[in-house]
Amino acid sequence: MIKKITLIGSGNVAHNLGKAFLLNGLEVSEVYSRTKTNAKVLAEKLEANYTNNLNELNQESDLYIIATSDNAIEKIANELKLGNKLVVHTSGSVGIEVLKNASKNYGSFYPLQTFTKTHQADFSEVPICIEGNNKESLKALSQIAGKLTNTVNELSSAQRQKLHLAAVFVSNFANYMQVIGEELCEEQQVDFELLKPLIKEVFEKNQTAKAIDNQTGPALRGDSFTMNKHLELLKDKKELKKLYQLISELIGL
Amino acid sequence: MIKKITLIGSGNVAHNLGKAFLLNGLEVSEVYSRTKTNAKVLAEKLEANYTNNLNELNQESDLYIIATSDNAIEKIANELKLGNKLVVHTSGSVGIEVLKNASKNYGSFYPLQTFTKTHQADFSEVPICIEGNNKESLKALSQIAGKLTNTVNELSSAQRQKLHLAAVFVSNFANYMQVIGEELCEEQQVDFELLKPLIKEVFEKNQTAKAIDNQTGPALRGDSFTMNKHLELLKDKKELKKLYQLISELIGL
Repeated sequence: MIKKITLIGSGNVAHNLGKAFLLNGLEVSEVYSRTKTNAKVLAEKLEANYTNNLNELNQESDLYIIATSDNAIEKIANELKLGNKLVVHTSGSVGIEVLKNASKNYGSFYPLQTFTKTHQADFSEVPICIEGNNKESLKALSQIAGKLTNTVNELSSAQRQKLHLAAVFVSNFANYMQVIGEELCEEQQVDFELLKPLIKEVFEKNQTAKAIDNQTGPALRGDSFTMNKHLELLKDKKELKKLYQLISELIGL
Repeated sequence: MIKKITLIGSGNVAHNLGKAFLLNGLEVSEVYSRTKTNAKVLAEKLEANYTNNLNELNQESDLYIIATSDNAIEKIANELKLGNKLVVHTSGSVGIEVLKNASKNYGSFYPLQTFTKTHQADFSEVPICIEGNNKESLKALSQIAGKLTNTVNELSSAQRQKLHLAAVFVSNFANYMQVIGEELCEEQQVDFELLKPLIKEVFEKNQTAKAIDNQTGPALRGDSFTMNKHLELLKDKKELKKLYQLISELIGL
């Protein structure tokens, strides 16, 4: 049974995970960050110890969670000597094999949500995707994920990486479509609020049906009359015009 | 005061508008469609007459609404001889000047929502954008729009056209980002439901804040480590890879 947890990292994911553990009766015993102040800030919130020296990490935790930026994971893992203590990372895009030098037991603990330090996520609604290098690791991760959420999914690294890429399209890129809409409205002093009912309708339709079945618009209809009018409006915006054409082509395929 | 309305067109917009007029105590006296069966189907739902001959249109209505595909509007308008009867189209992307040969009084009546024949929209939540070629036209349109919805906005053709383009980005293109997400998940047999809480979070954040302030992800962070992993996953999908790069560039600007 996992009781004590060490958090490696002090960013958005570490903040949200740390608080979620505390709220669910688990102990975060130590926080590491390469920046001592950052380690201290989060450690105080979690009533934990802190360090900025990986060699000084306590060896008493049952689970070590690397919640750093993706490109730091492998380097950190190679500095850890945790014997058979369970170590995981929280990345969507990194395989678990990068952890193999840190411990005999390793895996992935990927909470699929967008996090900010200032707003604590309700983990009961956050899917957690887990992967373990062996049955024992997987079982321990399943138990601890199950304390935070009802949605625990075992995914391979390949599945998780595709899911992470899909997440970028459905959240970051979909959000950016709205950013473009905001900019276009501002150019003509049109109130963006006018578009909110439309956005809501699309969101609600996609709650119960597949987006592929809800696709509408000039590109799907092959309505080149309207598309040409739109391209004319974008004639001074080379990149946006390219984007409009590319998405329209993909929709029309 | 507008009492009798003639609907020219029998598609999704004509269906939804026609029913909304009826529900709000207005009379649709006639439906035109170039296909007689289509005219009849809608006319029967609205207890209206129907015709497929523009020359036989009754001349007794107070408002003529052209709710056809955008590229048919000008041609139809040029066949109409309505004297000073008010005529409008429902298009987001077409200017009102194309109606000038049909009548002395003309304008635009643009309900900003995505419509289907099978689902009657709740017009009280649909913004209606209006434009008139003179004060009288505008006043009449304002009154009739106000019977259907609380959100009536006067927009110029230029404003409406930009708004329509923005609508394509925030609804059609944002929806397509989800289509891509669905496809990626299917390739690895990952349950798309895992992404729904994330999609909901983005939607809810954007209800009260601007999308530009909620942008997150590898492109915004300039996280080339993660972006390169994503591009590697897309290496066999030339067009999607191009799309990923283009949106990431725009986000990173």
